[in-house]
Amino acid sequence: MKDFERGRPTAAIGVDIGGTSVKLGLVDSNGKILFRESFPTHRSHGKKELLEVIVGHIRELVRLSAAREPRVAGIGIGAPGAIDVDRGLVYFFPNIPGWKDTPLKKILERRLDLPVTVDNDANAMAYGEFCFGAGRGSRTIIALTLGTGIGGGLVLGGKLFHGPHFSAAEIGHMVLNEDGPLCACGNHGCIETYVGNGYFVEEVRRRLKKTPGGILADDLRKGKELTPLAVAQAARRGDKLSKEMWDRTGAHLGNALAGLANLLNPEKIILGGGIAQNGDLLFKPVIAALNKKAFPIAATTVKVVPAELGVDAGLIGAAALAFSGSLPAGRQVTR
Amino acid sequence: MKDFERGRPTAAIGVDIGGTSVKLGLVDSNGKILFRESFPTHRSHGKKELLEVIVGHIRELVRLSAAREPRVAGIGIGAPGAIDVDRGLVYFFPNIPGWKDTPLKKILERRLDLPVTVDNDANAMAYGEFCFGAGRGSRTIIALTLGTGIGGGLVLGGKLFHGPHFSAAEIGHMVLNEDGPLCACGNHGCIETYVGNGYFVEEVRRRLKKTPGGILADDLRKGKELTPLAVAQAARRGDKLSKEMWDRTGAHLGNALAGLANLLNPEKIILGGGIAQNGDLLFKPVIAALNKKAFPIAATTVKVVPAELGVDAGLIGAAALAFSGSLPAGRQVTR
Repeated sequence: MKDFERGRPTAAIGVDIGGTSVKLGLVDSNGKILFRESFPTHRSHGKKELLEVIVGHIRELVRLSAAREPRVAGIGIGAPGAIDVDRGLVYFFPNIPGWKDTPLKKILERRLDLPVTVDNDANAMAYGEFCFGAGRGSRTIIALTLGTGIGGGLVLGGKLFHGPHFSAAEIGHMVLNEDGPLCACGNHGCIETYVGNGYFVEEVRRRLKKTPGGILADDLRKGKELTPLAVAQAARRGDKLSKEMWDRTGAHLGNALAGLANLLNPEKIILGGGIAQNGDLLFKPVIAALNKKAFPIAATTVKVVPAELGVDAGLIGAAALAFSGSLPAGRQVTR
Repeated sequence: MKDFERGRPTAAIGVDIGGTSVKLGLVDSNGKILFRESFPTHRSHGKKELLEVIVGHIRELVRLSAAREPRVAGIGIGAPGAIDVDRGLVYFFPNIPGWKDTPLKKILERRLDLPVTVDNDANAMAYGEFCFGAGRGSRTIIALTLGTGIGGGLVLGGKLFHGPHFSAAEIGHMVLNEDGPLCACGNHGCIETYVGNGYFVEEVRRRLKKTPGGILADDLRKGKELTPLAVAQAARRGDKLSKEMWDRTGAHLGNALAGLANLLNPEKIILGGGIAQNGDLLFKPVIAALNKKAFPIAATTVKVVPAELGVDAGLIGAAALAFSGSLPAGRQVTR
């Protein structure tokens, strides 16, 4: 804030660590990416090497920022795993070996002399949408990223909510049907088993076996890959099975969101990720089910909207973490 | 706080407005009721009269407190309806006519010259358990009162969470089975349809028709009323149907709590109300299901415990609202 009052622009460095690539960027206080870089995660041969590369890239971004004169307020890291957010300690990354119990915040702060905030990638994305995307101007939002898994983040009263042991917001693993499909987590009928990519595709495959005709079946015979996008394209061209599949998926998700709206009374529910890229095909049945199933006050005060930050959500979200508590007036939530 | 430091004890006045009776009490900063009174709600003939009686009783409690020397920090009201907590405005009471859009906080503060906090009764109960009951020492709890309906309250990071439009914590109306029993709210398979008193009794009746023998059936033939308590007593005497009924109810509730634990990662889930008075009959299957279904970190860091404040939960909770933010050290949550 002080720097703003002195009129000097502030930026943050966001680092989005993924299983396949690491994205870094210098992001200004409007959420605009000024510089960006990325490199494949596998290029490094272990934690130590990966850390070296990250530190090197961050130093370069700091140099670049000095050339353009924004002060770097801090570094935010979004990472794919379980993290003690208070201490910036990585418990483990399920898909990147060797990071068990790494004090990432401490290591980077010592080497870079800048404040570092570490959080998991789903929370970072949620916070990015809250600060710079579809959640702007709200105070309490639920953000979901619909991919292979369902990533979730909760911003409650203007702050990311982690839970006392930092494991909150596992929205994909709330039960929607106790006797529903078996989930990878061992449970039955989790939200993920209706909206996760793999389950979606499996269900289409099952339905195609029962009802083999139609536009989608033709597409697949011609060699098209069975993906949610292919099902969306077929639905738009009038394929009944495909349309039904989106209606069903939307209804399931809407029922789940109705429960969440009753529980948390959010102002916005933000849907991102591949499945959410299909506009009305998904949003229409979602909103219909939510309006029908949630309590009137919860239903009328919530908006279900698409995420706005797209493929940059992780990077901008990581940077947003670094801004938390120091955003310029206007971006700060006042109520 | 200041008064504590000066060594003068502080008390609060709690007012628990119910559909059938109004309970008032002077409650000390340890949650102990020093004086209590109650009167039937129907004795008054309308809002104006009810307000007069409440004001009169509060004045008496203030006098009594002066005699015993605790300073009255404020007045907390728990009320059965929709409330704008920031403004202390009653939107409406579903079971007490005439209160639509009543600025209760403003009215009472003007007449009594003491700070007034108004919240709904389920939130008050949750906050009472948090300050003085089973939630003591925790920071993030979920409290459920299992009665005819399911009342819920969320304390997140040491504060009651209301949601931006004050309608949060409707835990009973999260969907557990999309195709489950029809709920009074119009939805299907809400948690309430498995754990609410009426649904519980209905399900027992349905099962008795199918399997008419057994201890419970005998009890009922002898004129015993069919209540959750009667089903608990029969279960303890070895009645198979009754035992199964508790196992089933506990499993449903445990599955629902697993989802909540995955979402909010609470330290404690506190169960109160009639159905929760049956010890291991309910708690054992609840905890078994939760441990099986929640993510390991959420499951191992949460305790499911019975409420401690019993029939006084509403009254003590209302008083706790008045203490909020001014509790003595030791009761304040530090982390």
